[in-house]
Amino acid sequence: MGDDDSGFLVGTLGIAGVGLIGGSVGMAARARGLARQVVGIGRSEERLSLARDLGAVDEFTTDLLEGASRCDMLYLATPVMTIIEQLRQLPLLRGHNCVVTDGGSVKEAIVRAAEALPAEMRFVGGHPMAGSEDAGVEAAREDLFQGATYVLTPTDQSNAPALDLVRRFAEALGSRVVEMSPETHDRIVACTSHLPHIAAGAFLRVAEAAGPGVRDVRAGSFRDLTRVAASPSTLWRDICCANRGPILDALRQFREVLACAEELIAEGTPEEIESWFETGRHLNSGLAAGKEAPE
Amino acid sequence: MGDDDSGFLVGTLGIAGVGLIGGSVGMAARARGLARQVVGIGRSEERLSLARDLGAVDEFTTDLLEGASRCDMLYLATPVMTIIEQLRQLPLLRGHNCVVTDGGSVKEAIVRAAEALPAEMRFVGGHPMAGSEDAGVEAAREDLFQGATYVLTPTDQSNAPALDLVRRFAEALGSRVVEMSPETHDRIVACTSHLPHIAAGAFLRVAEAAGPGVRDVRAGSFRDLTRVAASPSTLWRDICCANRGPILDALRQFREVLACAEELIAEGTPEEIESWFETGRHLNSGLAAGKEAPE
Repeated sequence: MGDDDSGFLVGTLGIAGVGLIGGSVGMAARARGLARQVVGIGRSEERLSLARDLGAVDEFTTDLLEGASRCDMLYLATPVMTIIEQLRQLPLLRGHNCVVTDGGSVKEAIVRAAEALPAEMRFVGGHPMAGSEDAGVEAAREDLFQGATYVLTPTDQSNAPALDLVRRFAEALGSRVVEMSPETHDRIVACTSHLPHIAAGAFLRVAEAAGPGVRDVRAGSFRDLTRVAASPSTLWRDICCANRGPILDALRQFREVLACAEELIAEGTPEEIESWFETGRHLNSGLAAGKEAPE
Repeated sequence: MGDDDSGFLVGTLGIAGVGLIGGSVGMAARARGLARQVVGIGRSEERLSLARDLGAVDEFTTDLLEGASRCDMLYLATPVMTIIEQLRQLPLLRGHNCVVTDGGSVKEAIVRAAEALPAEMRFVGGHPMAGSEDAGVEAAREDLFQGATYVLTPTDQSNAPALDLVRRFAEALGSRVVEMSPETHDRIVACTSHLPHIAAGAFLRVAEAAGPGVRDVRAGSFRDLTRVAASPSTLWRDICCANRGPILDALRQFREVLACAEELIAEGTPEEIESWFETGRHLNSGLAAGKEAPE
């Protein structure tokens, strides 16, 4: 039994990609006693050595298959397209019993790639709704997932005990688990995470064009909006490539709503303009209420 | 001489509109000894009485002209269109010497309205870049302006000693003063404040359309983006009406940049997509650097 109250304990936990998310998974697993051993898997010995020094892993390897072959549970925490490549390599370990999960920001492309895994490598897709614009194991924190929403995206083909294991693991990390289909997940995060990120890049371009005075006159709201633009570009390249359809839908809808707002501000009465903002206030408090009282 | 180090002291300071901004001006002026007396001017005796109980004003009146006639310095902190209406009433006090300033989020329309004031009522437009989505004197804080940028928008017609007085007042509130033309101010805040606010309303509409799961799956970036939507709708109605041209320009540019991003995500190579996000990172760190080392 682990040190935490959940009673969760796995033998060897492998973490591929020991950055912000993977490093935080390792720190939490070690601090809470959720695994007998945590093995980091990555490309750079220097980075993996740093991860060990920071307490994110017990040991490490730069060989994915060698590392995975020792794991009872394998957590893929690399960028989305790398997760897909790793899922394509894992069938070489045919016959090795383990549970595979991931923390990728896009789910359908990953869940589809995981369908090629042999049955004994039981995959459950996941996405912890936690993180920051900081990257790397230096930014990892043992409590990153505490209080966060953790989405799991099982399908008809998911193994029930594996789903139960991953659910209990996410709960043992301190998260609240929500299940939904990969398609629903991708459609929603396109609106709530991917669209805002792309919009941040657009805000910055408009602001830059406004001239040098912008550096002096930035409201706090502008900093809040553009903060996410500091995230690694490679992560966002992968997200855009892997979730193209839902992102394009969200962008098109967003531009349509903005065009309506533009027309309203150009030609509407003050009352109509006020009503547009009032609707936004209601939507905002409705969404905020969802936070207070999760279903 | 006042209690603070600035040596700033005015006789009677009148504050029209004792909400978040006006209340914070009053609290700071009283705490720092910047005025012998602070008179609140508003419509609701109940609200003004609360402002007095909270330490924002020494006394109050519901009569703008009566209150203004007692002031050496009058601070208009009502919504933008109300400031314009108040500036139209003040010429009835012809012969009363005072300095008039304001904290409105739009400057050109206000500065134009102030041109009708008699010469002895010396107007200097201002905009403290501070605030929050919370409204009302309950949210006011003595230190709201501490460390904030405070824009002043003098014109050729501004009285130099009045500009100096308002500048020293803003500095005594703890702010860093930046001067620019009303037109430049309005163009920049359209990009950095008004556009993000309208975009927040658009994000909320797109998210709402994504279905009920949105309540579960919101990244922190989404909350950062939409937080501002809680602001009073009447303030934003006024801002849109008073800064229509620059806001429409910013919205059009924003939609154009978004259309380019949409095309890139639909048809670009992964390298091109990465490059788009990388440019955003550079713009973001360039703007953030401006914060660290203001010119």
